[in-house]
Amino acid sequence: MLTSIQKIDVQLFKVPLPEVLNDAKHGDHTHFELVTATVTLADGTSGTGYTYTGGKGGYAIKAMLEHDMVGVLIGKDGTQIEEIYDFLEWHIHYVGRGGIAAFAMSVIDIALWDIKCKKAGLPLWKMAGGANNTCKAYCGGIDLQFPLEKLLKNIQGYLDAGFNAVKIKIGRANLEEDIARIKAVRELIGPDITFMVDANYSMSVEKAIEAAKRFEPYNIYWFEEPTIPDDYKGFAHIANATGMPLAMGENLHTIHEFEYAFDQAKLSFIQPDASNCGGVTGWLRAAKLSQDYQIPVCSHGMQELHVSLVSSQPNGGWLEVHSFPIDQYTTRPLVVQDFRAVASDEPGTGVVFDWDKLSPHRIV
Amino acid sequence: MLTSIQKIDVQLFKVPLPEVLNDAKHGDHTHFELVTATVTLADGTSGTGYTYTGGKGGYAIKAMLEHDMVGVLIGKDGTQIEEIYDFLEWHIHYVGRGGIAAFAMSVIDIALWDIKCKKAGLPLWKMAGGANNTCKAYCGGIDLQFPLEKLLKNIQGYLDAGFNAVKIKIGRANLEEDIARIKAVRELIGPDITFMVDANYSMSVEKAIEAAKRFEPYNIYWFEEPTIPDDYKGFAHIANATGMPLAMGENLHTIHEFEYAFDQAKLSFIQPDASNCGGVTGWLRAAKLSQDYQIPVCSHGMQELHVSLVSSQPNGGWLEVHSFPIDQYTTRPLVVQDFRAVASDEPGTGVVFDWDKLSPHRIV
Ligand SMILES: [Mg+2]
Ligand SMILES: [Mg+2]
Repeated sequence: MLTSIQKIDVQLFKVPLPEVLNDAKHGDHTHFELVTATVTLADGTSGTGYTYTGGKGGYAIKAMLEHDMVGVLIGKDGTQIEEIYDFLEWHIHYVGRGGIAAFAMSVIDIALWDIKCKKAGLPLWKMAGGANNTCKAYCGGIDLQFPLEKLLKNIQGYLDAGFNAVKIKIGRANLEEDIARIKAVRELIGPDITFMVDANYSMSVEKAIEAAKRFEPYNIYWFEEPTIPDDYKGFAHIANATGMPLAMGENLHTIHEFEYAFDQAKLSFIQPDASNCGGVTGWLRAAKLSQDYQIPVCSHGMQELHVSLVSSQPNGGWLEVHSFPIDQYTTRPLVVQDFRAVASDEPGTGVVFDWDKLSPHRIV
Repeated sequence: MLTSIQKIDVQLFKVPLPEVLNDAKHGDHTHFELVTATVTLADGTSGTGYTYTGGKGGYAIKAMLEHDMVGVLIGKDGTQIEEIYDFLEWHIHYVGRGGIAAFAMSVIDIALWDIKCKKAGLPLWKMAGGANNTCKAYCGGIDLQFPLEKLLKNIQGYLDAGFNAVKIKIGRANLEEDIARIKAVRELIGPDITFMVDANYSMSVEKAIEAAKRFEPYNIYWFEEPTIPDDYKGFAHIANATGMPLAMGENLHTIHEFEYAFDQAKLSFIQPDASNCGGVTGWLRAAKLSQDYQIPVCSHGMQELHVSLVSSQPNGGWLEVHSFPIDQYTTRPLVVQDFRAVASDEPGTGVVFDWDKLSPHRIV
């Protein structure tokens, strides 16, 4: 069959960050890991998928791809994306249901979508929904341990780069410090810039309620991951007690987790990440649920891909421009015009890696 | 510090099964994978932990242990088990929350418990609770595709080996076939043998309700994993509609998943597996919840370890004697007396691998 999968090349890269970044729960980030898979069909068409991590898990993702996925995918029809998705989900179910398996499945799925779009001669934003080719965008800092002066300089950099929305990390040992930083940022950016905060699930429900109440003078647009993502009802409790719009999604890996979150967490925004919730297929399944629940679908990380997905949806929300600059290692770093991120019009996912730039960081 | 972790040796084995085994959702099993880690402290004490899979994921587990865990554990106090457990959980959280990470954490935790018991000079059943040193036990076949005659011969073998409780797989394409097999097994074993069935989450809620109603003439003791483990409320729906006692746990990897299952699934039995829910620490946390919910705590797989855990609990239920014969690769294969499994009295987990017997199956 011309569309049989003939070859899958898996690579792992460890890419240094320009500076050490930190948040409340993941400690210091010095690198990000990038795992890529290039899938080639019998007819010669090829596509590349990928995932990333904050520095841990990359070897395990690569091992699962190479030992548990590549072999069983060779010979399958690479244009049957849903079938392959469901096959893989059951194939690794016993060691799966999220975690590393969800990252590995995402890599394969994105590669197959790249092929699908190329074969159709259409860009991802059209293939994935076609509602729009641009979306709102904000810069998300990983800046919890930046001294105040550096934090403000960083935020100013976002504004200078053409953004009108910013997010900072909170969750320092002392809530007063968080509030002082929020106050200083709001004073810097003025009243018209959209301003979100992200606690990376570092707070108890009680502390998050106290924090949200203290945010009130500063017009915080959303409060991201106030507490652990598993505590759906805890999220609802925070929302009900404070009226604060809540966001999460980067730690939800299965459609079941998204169902629970939509049903129980009283979210105002959902932020699926195609690199860890099953690729484009998993992201679109979460996006479909977000329409049922009338919640804007946003994203986490890898802006170079999500720009096409968020733009494509009728209820598209905000694209996170993440501090892991994967887009700088592609032939088309993120394009922003009039405060909106612009999706690629090239056939494919719009993400074409600059392998020469990546090669010094290749591990295995 | 004398109790600092000095060295961790990780090994992966792929062990052939005596015959091909199959169930409704995992296909054919020809091997099981065994991942071991031997942890040595500065004072020379050492302990071995392990996990297993049905043939997929072993390389990823080993990769996570070697690349994301060993390095950060060297130098930590190996007697501080709870601290190490919590540290690891956050350390790999972004790629974790279950899946491969839960298996990898289990390996480390079991090794540290082996050390803890050896240092105390006590067997695991005493250290983990001490309620008893024996427990009820049943044989669980992976026999969905065995022809009827072979199925019955297999069941007779369990009875001949000294067991008074058996479990078979169900979930064949046609419910009539399941019922015919259940009828034949009940006729073979007579009215006094305890008899469970396991669908490996292959049924819809509706089909499971229909199946459970059809079980009625055959006195089925529990119905295991009728539907996907994520659908907690679906389980409750089946229990309410039929009155059938339900069991699950082998696919629950985090304490949050156990909390949801206890709270929402209306289970009659819980079956945590220390190889994939965080080792002895994770298993005991689930067991503690089971006491709050007054549900007997049972087990899944690796009978050579779980015999000590199930026996140790005041609400200990049934030990599954699984068809992956890991115990045959230890110096003390499972001991059964008067229909009860007997825990080892040796200091440690009671699981001492026969490395010579395993070595032909070592992969990396
Ligand atoms: Mg975040
Ligand atoms: Mg089972």
